[in-house]
Amino acid sequence: MRGLIGLAVGIICAIGAIQADSPKWGYECIQGRCKKVESINRDDVVSLGVCRLFCGEDIGTLWPKPTGTVRVGNTLAHIDIDGILFKLPDYKSQQTYWEQTQQRFFDQIKAKVVKNHVLRQGGKKVVVDIAVDREDLTFDFNTDESYKVDVKEEDGNVGVKITAPTYYGARHGIPSSVNIEDAPVFKHRGISLDTSRNYFSVDAIKKTIDALAMVKLNTFHWHITDSHSFPVIIKSHPDLADYGAYTPEQIYTADDVRDVVRYARIRGVRVIPEFDAPAHVGEGWQKKGMTVCFNAQPWSRYCVEPPCGQFDPSKDALYGVLEDIYREFNEMFEEPFVFHMGGDEVSVSCWNSSTELQQWMLQRGWQLEESDFMRLWGYFQDNALQRWDKVARAKVPIILWTSRLTDVPYVDDYLDKDRYIIQIWTKGDDPKIEDLLNRGFNLIFSNYDALYFDCGFQGWVSDGHNWCSPYIGWQKVYDNSLSSLAGSKVKQVLGAEAALWSEQADDSALDSRFWPRASALAERLWTDPTDTWRDAESRMLIHRERLVENGVAADSLQPQWCLQNEGDCPNVL
Amino acid sequence: MRGLIGLAVGIICAIGAIQADSPKWGYECIQGRCKKVESINRDDVVSLGVCRLFCGEDIGTLWPKPTGTVRVGNTLAHIDIDGILFKLPDYKSQQTYWEQTQQRFFDQIKAKVVKNHVLRQGGKKVVVDIAVDREDLTFDFNTDESYKVDVKEEDGNVGVKITAPTYYGARHGIPSSVNIEDAPVFKHRGISLDTSRNYFSVDAIKKTIDALAMVKLNTFHWHITDSHSFPVIIKSHPDLADYGAYTPEQIYTADDVRDVVRYARIRGVRVIPEFDAPAHVGEGWQKKGMTVCFNAQPWSRYCVEPPCGQFDPSKDALYGVLEDIYREFNEMFEEPFVFHMGGDEVSVSCWNSSTELQQWMLQRGWQLEESDFMRLWGYFQDNALQRWDKVARAKVPIILWTSRLTDVPYVDDYLDKDRYIIQIWTKGDDPKIEDLLNRGFNLIFSNYDALYFDCGFQGWVSDGHNWCSPYIGWQKVYDNSLSSLAGSKVKQVLGAEAALWSEQADDSALDSRFWPRASALAERLWTDPTDTWRDAESRMLIHRERLVENGVAADSLQPQWCLQNEGDCPNVL
Repeated sequence: MRGLIGLAVGIICAIGAIQADSPKWGYECIQGRCKKVESINRDDVVSLGVCRLFCGEDIGTLWPKPTGTVRVGNTLAHIDIDGILFKLPDYKSQQTYWEQTQQRFFDQIKAKVVKNHVLRQGGKKVVVDIAVDREDLTFDFNTDESYKVDVKEEDGNVGVKITAPTYYGARHGIPSSVNIEDAPVFKHRGISLDTSRNYFSVDAIKKTIDALAMVKLNTFHWHITDSHSFPVIIKSHPDLADYGAYTPEQIYTADDVRDVVRYARIRGVRVIPEFDAPAHVGEGWQKKGMTVCFNAQPWSRYCVEPPCGQFDPSKDALYGVLEDIYREFNEMFEEPFVFHMGGDEVSVSCWNSSTELQQWMLQRGWQLEESDFMRLWGYFQDNALQRWDKVARAKVPIILWTSRLTDVPYVDDYLDKDRYIIQIWTKGDDPKIEDLLNRGFNLIFSNYDALYFDCGFQGWVSDGHNWCSPYIGWQKVYDNSLSSLAGSKVKQVLGAEAALWSEQADDSALDSRFWPRASALAERLWTDPTDTWRDAESRMLIHRERLVENGVAADSLQPQWCLQNEGDCPNVL
Repeated sequence: MRGLIGLAVGIICAIGAIQADSPKWGYECIQGRCKKVESINRDDVVSLGVCRLFCGEDIGTLWPKPTGTVRVGNTLAHIDIDGILFKLPDYKSQQTYWEQTQQRFFDQIKAKVVKNHVLRQGGKKVVVDIAVDREDLTFDFNTDESYKVDVKEEDGNVGVKITAPTYYGARHGIPSSVNIEDAPVFKHRGISLDTSRNYFSVDAIKKTIDALAMVKLNTFHWHITDSHSFPVIIKSHPDLADYGAYTPEQIYTADDVRDVVRYARIRGVRVIPEFDAPAHVGEGWQKKGMTVCFNAQPWSRYCVEPPCGQFDPSKDALYGVLEDIYREFNEMFEEPFVFHMGGDEVSVSCWNSSTELQQWMLQRGWQLEESDFMRLWGYFQDNALQRWDKVARAKVPIILWTSRLTDVPYVDDYLDKDRYIIQIWTKGDDPKIEDLLNRGFNLIFSNYDALYFDCGFQGWVSDGHNWCSPYIGWQKVYDNSLSSLAGSKVKQVLGAEAALWSEQADDSALDSRFWPRASALAERLWTDPTDTWRDAESRMLIHRERLVENGVAADSLQPQWCLQNEGDCPNVL
């Protein structure tokens, strides 16, 4: 037997289903494509899952596609799943991490086995030997997520050797186990979830993090508050959630947040907290007297969607409250390596609606022109940042959304490229992007024309469809090449996030909005493929089935017929 | 205490939640609108659910809006839910129907109670007394679904009297229990589900039927087979599903179908079987030699999506097989009162690709022009219908989709208005509609510009978006007035169906595609409102929450903030 080797991939997708898919038909690899064939009087036809492992593309069914060398064998080892042994790194601080990773691996296998309820007896033993260079569990932009997997047969059993510089790299090696060398192209790969417009349960968030881990996405950006609701409990200011949560049940305690952060970290996912300011505040602040234009009507005069609301930067007491919030955020998010301060969609007309604030500005000798309000915003940003720095362990990078403040000339006046990372949410071809790159800023892309996953549904404050319609298909996500968007300055691009703004989504639609589109993003960022979505399509169809098997209610992309008849659903050209 | 009475509505949405929604705020009815107010030191503020029952519109939170008189009291009775007694009609044949209806009522209450886990002790007893004129359980276009509910206090307890001519009317009265007189405007109100392009589990179908029942939709049209898969087991031709089902698990046995039909009937939902022919066949027929152009490539030359496939009407043996299928359909669907024969998207180029079929036509002295192929189609339709009539209990109405055959002049040559009902799937303003109405046909609307719920997602055999994009919002569904579309001939319109073609949907997205958009259709058909969706919007938001409470993963339409702050999310005009 030469090599093997679809070990864990084989286990995950083929256990008990090596034989044909139906009494009447199965698959055969013909000219690099799995072809549905009659199985009558033939022993050599196999199931679709097994055929795809070895046929055609040299990466089997892996998603995302590895960036280094891959060697898939051409036979399948019959594995004894009760005979899989892990040899884990001997680092004390990594112990619970590995225990849970191992558990998750067995859970995934078990889910698969129970579903197909056929299991051949016997089979080869497997030893998965994991070697990690460093004990350190720091997880930031400098973390090396590369890994290497070698699979060998020894004494009739299978030895899988996973080596990696870090825990985070090594755990990427677990589900794949062809011979592989792999590392991501972009370091920041994730999704952003808004839990203010509608609330999402902690369970739903954790399920989403499990799915992120399946496709090597490493970032969960938590836009936790907004004008609409304030679901997170701040112990030093209980009135924020008492007034601001939709109901007393729709909240996140510090323990909930910490639970999510730890759950994510073990799965190789960083949680980035966002506290959006000075706009996008409102509910919860009713008793503070620190906001202006809250729920002003007609709302379209003061903001982009109801309810309006902005901080009043002239209130000195505001910064003390912010410091308290930041302190508790820093604690519950377990000293994040980066902090998102929001900073989008500040409305001059909102600030300008407060005569008190106007007075304060005029008293300082300012005018009431746009540039003066930008100065006010800069003043707020400086003061807020000082308060964050006061409570944080170190001067961590700060992320801000693109806005008027990140435009020339204001960006030069108020934002330091060595401190701020800018998250792009305008279109991918917006000339601002070049301005920012030329000034040396590092960027994260969430260009709305490819990465806003809430687009395409009915309007909710307008006739017709919501503002960023139409719906963005997975193909567009896949082809949203950051290398093309950033050109020669792509080194300044940390990565990208798909965003779900939740005006029209809650637990009910969470899975179908993100999946499998977030998987398309995952391959875009991990692999940065030079091919287009067409080359990934058949692998995407089988990957989508794997998401569903693992409990993710991913949207269906095509008739199951197209999955079973590869190449027979070509596009009209 | 004057009148009452939000009895069952009150029970369903307000149990244990009469008090304010939060420690800090609740609702007060101010000028006909429920206004969020601070609750500190006030006993009179109530929860949103309770406020909406009595405030403003005179129909409380009912969906769909009743067509007759409604009187909602202005106080809420405190009900002892262990003290609700049903006095059911004494008809033997209705016994299991009522037992299950009663059980469903208690299940819904229990689901609500458990969630809010607060229940005051004591309360009034309730007697629900149901009187039905007729024992007969026939359920067809002539079934009278009207009902009347009277609520009275007697001896400190509550008496609810429901009267109706039929079981199906009376059960509509159960969840509502303000004083009400009500009857539907359109008799055919439903959805259509395609279980061939992707498979849906029996459990998912039953859950969908539960949701239909919640909004008084009375039809589940089951497009059970197509070219892509043949999931239903025909005992006399087991090869159809052996070859045609996606996998041996993705099937419907006769028992499954019967189970669905009975489950639906008890819930006031008729199941209409569709066996689509002569196009939309393929998988499963491999061994029969009765199809042409199956999986012909390039597919776009022969059909509208892969895989192509049509019956060859020249094969005499075909009609025997159809008779067998029809016989088993008629049995498993329990003698349906109407049968859908499909008949859409027949491709002349498909038929014309078979030299054998060409020969057959030429031998009969026909040409190979469009009119000859229409004659071939007419020949097929006549023969197929004869076979159906042979096995069915009576000459039940036949439904066909609009097609070239329903166009002038062919419609006059081949289709009889007294036998065929035409289901419109072209646009609502298609001039064909008038042609058909003028000829006296009865119609069912599924005009794709308002009632195709699969539209708006990515293309799957094309770049960009799927063919009927963009996404159809609930507002468009709500405003799709059949009275406007059919004008003076609206009497010939039986009703409408929202269709989910399942190329891009399976169990995962079933709920979010149908709900709450199917609820918008439900009110359109039951009530035929003269108001627009704007008048229904705040009621829709609270109705959507009720769907979710009942286990339907309905899409979210707006931030929860808009639900809690009625009137504060007005449209930009």
